Amino acid sequence: MKKKINKTNALYPTLTTILGTMVNGKPNFITIAHVGIMNHGDPQYLSFGVSKAHFSNQGILENKVFSVNIPSKDLVVETDYFGLVTGKNTDKSKVLDVFYEEYDKAPMLKQCPVTMECRLAQTIDFKTHDIFIGEIMATYANEDVLMKNGKIDIRKIDPLLFDMSSLKYWALGEPVANCWNVGKALKKKE
Amino acid sequence: MKKKINKTNALYPTLTTILGTMVNGKPNFITIAHVGIMNHGDPQYLSFGVSKAHFSNQGILENKVFSVNIPSKDLVVETDYFGLVTGKNTDKSKVLDVFYEEYDKAPMLKQCPVTMECRLAQTIDFKTHDIFIGEIMATYANEDVLMKNGKIDIRKIDPLLFDMSSLKYWALGEPVANCWNVGKALKKKE
Repeated sequence: MKKKINKTNALYPTLTTILGTMVNGKPNFITIAHVGIMNHGDPQYLSFGVSKAHFSNQGILENKVFSVNIPSKDLVVETDYFGLVTGKNTDKSKVLDVFYEEYDKAPMLKQCPVTMECRLAQTIDFKTHDIFIGEIMATYANEDVLMKNGKIDIRKIDPLLFDMSSLKYWALGEPVANCWNVGKALKKKE
Repeated sequence: MKKKINKTNALYPTLTTILGTMVNGKPNFITIAHVGIMNHGDPQYLSFGVSKAHFSNQGILENKVFSVNIPSKDLVVETDYFGLVTGKNTDKSKVLDVFYEEYDKAPMLKQCPVTMECRLAQTIDFKTHDIFIGEIMATYANEDVLMKNGKIDIRKIDPLLFDMSSLKYWALGEPVANCWNVGKALKKKE
């Protein structure tokens, strides 16, 4: 018998990201962990829920482009800082090093091992939040976080996982099992 | 200097969930890890990207209600199995124990420590995927995964985190730092 705990959101942890935008001609960065993967394929769509109170929204809505930066655990202080102060009255463009690739309105962060440029594909206009659905246009990674097959090594990314219940960032643990594989044990029993 | 790695989706890991639906009068379950949190508040919206090839979609579209079940690490075999075989030709209703609360079309799994009932709020119709945006209507938890303050203890949930690059499920690691807190060190330096 389970206990009813109202409408608690149990979909944690989520990946902690830093969105890069250009607002009033200046690079701005905000920590966003209310993220989602919509599909699997090309075009590849991702979602980012950003409270309308935030400064970044106007940059995304105006420029229709933004960056997604994935910080490693060792960037936890800077990552948290980007979520603590608003770009309205703080210049967050000097905390880490900024670089650009295809889009001059999608500033990215050098110290993040992986970054993505996204084009705004759709906005869902909820009462308190803009849900920005971005299409991945290009991804950039430090060579040392790639496996021999060229794919991203999540162990080396060492991402920050966000949990609203404990109000903590958590690290990634150990691998448990292979997907589309470990369940075959039950298939044989059918 | 980063290496361009095409349009690689770097938004992993994501939380592995099991969606419960009613299709043709029978409970059906499917593993979905392409999930997202849209906002923070009430109504609370979550997203689930489900390939149109799947059997579950018709149950969600018809009934406008579904369940979200969060498996612990010890359910990895069953969880993977739900993603390996299709409800079209396999009865997945007997793998774990099913229970119901408010909605008779939202079957939930007893062995999952936390479950949610969701009402379909919106569907985004992408070419290959239905993105189901669910509103949380109620959440149910085993007492032993709750902290003294009544919130969910993510350590005790011990969730399965999905990564498309390694094709592995990963465990949650250790806490790193407190959110909206550890970054204050930089704030003082401003």
